[in-house]
Amino acid sequence: MTSATSAPHVPTLEDVIAAQSALRTRCPLVQCLTNSVSANFMANVLLAVGASPAMVDNPEEAGLFARVASAVLVNLGTPTQAQVEAMGLAAAAADQAGKPWVLDPIGAGGLPWRGGVALELLHHHPAMIRGNASEIIGLAGLGEGARGVDSTADPSAAVDSAAKLLDYAGAVSASGAVDHVLGRVGATGSLTLVRIAGGNALLTRVTAVGCALGALAAAYGAVTSDPLTALVAAHTHFAVAAELAAEQASRPGSFAGAFLDALDAVDASSLRAKGQVQEAVMLVD
Amino acid sequence: MTSATSAPHVPTLEDVIAAQSALRTRCPLVQCLTNSVSANFMANVLLAVGASPAMVDNPEEAGLFARVASAVLVNLGTPTQAQVEAMGLAAAAADQAGKPWVLDPIGAGGLPWRGGVALELLHHHPAMIRGNASEIIGLAGLGEGARGVDSTADPSAAVDSAAKLLDYAGAVSASGAVDHVLGRVGATGSLTLVRIAGGNALLTRVTAVGCALGALAAAYGAVTSDPLTALVAAHTHFAVAAELAAEQASRPGSFAGAFLDALDAVDASSLRAKGQVQEAVMLVD
Amino acid sequence: MTSATSAPHVPTLEDVIAAQSALRTRCPLVQCLTNSVSANFMANVLLAVGASPAMVDNPEEAGLFARVASAVLVNLGTPTQAQVEAMGLAAAAADQAGKPWVLDPIGAGGLPWRGGVALELLHHHPAMIRGNASEIIGLAGLGEGARGVDSTADPSAAVDSAAKLLDYAGAVSASGAVDHVLGRVGATGSLTLVRIAGGNALLTRVTAVGCALGALAAAYGAVTSDPLTALVAAHTHFAVAAELAAEQASRPGSFAGAFLDALDAVDASSLRAKGQVQEAVMLVD
Repeated sequence: MTSATSAPHVPTLEDVIAAQSALRTRCPLVQCLTNSVSANFMANVLLAVGASPAMVDNPEEAGLFARVASAVLVNLGTPTQAQVEAMGLAAAAADQAGKPWVLDPIGAGGLPWRGGVALELLHHHPAMIRGNASEIIGLAGLGEGARGVDSTADPSAAVDSAAKLLDYAGAVSASGAVDHVLGRVGATGSLTLVRIAGGNALLTRVTAVGCALGALAAAYGAVTSDPLTALVAAHTHFAVAAELAAEQASRPGSFAGAFLDALDAVDASSLRAKGQVQEAVMLVD
Repeated sequence: MTSATSAPHVPTLEDVIAAQSALRTRCPLVQCLTNSVSANFMANVLLAVGASPAMVDNPEEAGLFARVASAVLVNLGTPTQAQVEAMGLAAAAADQAGKPWVLDPIGAGGLPWRGGVALELLHHHPAMIRGNASEIIGLAGLGEGARGVDSTADPSAAVDSAAKLLDYAGAVSASGAVDHVLGRVGATGSLTLVRIAGGNALLTRVTAVGCALGALAAAYGAVTSDPLTALVAAHTHFAVAAELAAEQASRPGSFAGAFLDALDAVDASSLRAKGQVQEAVMLVD
Repeated sequence: MTSATSAPHVPTLEDVIAAQSALRTRCPLVQCLTNSVSANFMANVLLAVGASPAMVDNPEEAGLFARVASAVLVNLGTPTQAQVEAMGLAAAAADQAGKPWVLDPIGAGGLPWRGGVALELLHHHPAMIRGNASEIIGLAGLGEGARGVDSTADPSAAVDSAAKLLDYAGAVSASGAVDHVLGRVGATGSLTLVRIAGGNALLTRVTAVGCALGALAAAYGAVTSDPLTALVAAHTHFAVAAELAAEQASRPGSFAGAFLDALDAVDASSLRAKGQVQEAVMLVD
């Protein structure tokens, strides 16, 4: 299968470095429709990396704003009925305007109502889908329920599910100890898996870190030419920042502040020193 | 009066230590229906103590999720109509499924509309009620209004009100310089007051600390056999963490981060060294 | 034009120092109807400066509470339909009860729906309006759109727009590298511009800082005799705290905590040493 969103080649660490430089230079405006837990932290993450956040999430304005924004993040953490309506309008507007948007299907596997919301949203062609392994498996319909926002499955178990979701999205990732990112590469759209190692276990002890990663993926989507590179860049930026932060803090409260500092500090030098974009694997469709 | 939720004996510091160990081991899933100010901090507090937060607060999912969760927290800080509906569904579902749930009646004394919401919720048998003294007095109908979320009354003034609320809940606490926790103990259900001293005045300079204490009480409710022990454990864990944090920080911004670190650091050793579960007093009904 | 809200004289640094002392002494209760990104940080800012926050923002209670509160903040960041209704009720109740209220018209220039909401609110006589330059220009109807919550215009470009808005409000400010505050002074109500310099660029790297400044203006409105002095005091308090915080932190994550600490630490001595309330300019109407 070929895709309009195929990456020209398998993303490398140098592609991540180029994307991070573009992010700093272009300061994309990222519209976030997200949950009540993550709104503040997500906006601070976007500011720390050099993007500009705007949390416009009401149905009266969400579609209009998606045409103005550089990219859109839709996160299903704590949806209200009004937000669900706004998410549909923003996703449709982004799709029509050719703006990349990211779906973070929190809890979609375990909760039927939001599962239905997520399936509706899939038809608006998200550039990227980011979740933990349980959520990716759940969204793909394989039926394993998610436990809250924690993942109980390993990312390697979500690869088949992620591959199925490429029917809807340009790239799909499952977060975990080693992040797994799937997309298509080259003229023939070869199914490709990129693993990003590194990071730190303290990432799982601070709330909304995964949510903020989705927003960062949207920011990268605004400055890179294809979703697979954007998603690999976002995961790598987060993993390197987590390692830098863990040098400063060893418990969750101080780690949260140090992580924001580190997201700001990440540059070509630290990406080159610590980024672990592991050799990609071509998969058989 | 005897109660199905009587503690087998008056909770001691050793019971608190055992409960904290169980909390770390069992990582309960705590569903929180809470206000917009506290959502992020509450989730971070639950993660810091070793629990798993899930802020599912819409009427479409709240009842279903309460059957899956280990415990539920209902906080009346900034209720929307949809959240109020979800709170009723979650409380009813928790009650039916035998899951402990905690009511935090913020402002219920001073605002008639939410006072009515709180009274409705009382009929779903909360395991615990946690508030400041004004809120406990207000909820019990003694008519002293609460000023925002700050308490203008001393916890000792709320003891009679807390005792009345034991008609609805297994244990009731009023936060203050010395926290007052009421419950019933033994085969005869003797009315018992436990005071927890310690803590630090900086706790009153960081928003959502009281809200997060309610969520911690729910987490302890999932791992201890009775509400009185759970509520005493939550108050003691908070007080000890506040003392540890005050050794690191003397102003509110840095204290907030240090407090999360300290909630993570609390263990049997620090509880034994600093926990002040004061001698209980048997009261006449 | 004379105004009931004219300042008796042009506010000086000594007036700011007196207002800050009154804020600490009187601990005003500030009702905030605000966006999901800022709620937690805003409450922490109010606690840090010695005020008491209450985020009562539902239509069932907002009007009632505005009569009890010392001052009210209305922020248009992420309005829901219910919040918009509550904002109208709170603003009307504050106006009727003679309580100062502050309008923060986030994004009002660029988004027609909330622009309409803002224009409705103007008729309830806000004591103060605080925004970035683009928002002040947009609200005054000069048609330059705002880009998210970031300002793309310099505050000096917003002076004419701010002057127009004095038909509705007692004082108006546009935030920027040098904050511009407009009001009327003396028996003849002379149009007066006060510039507040200082601060630090890291203020633009932490979300909700501008929102929290609006809430601080409301707190000062409760303890000073006129809106111009209140708004000058709030901007000066923020600028001095930012300078203190920048001595402790050089990246956004640690700056956010240090800024809360510094808001707490600001006193007569630090205001006198670092406050830059620049010479006022009388403008021709």
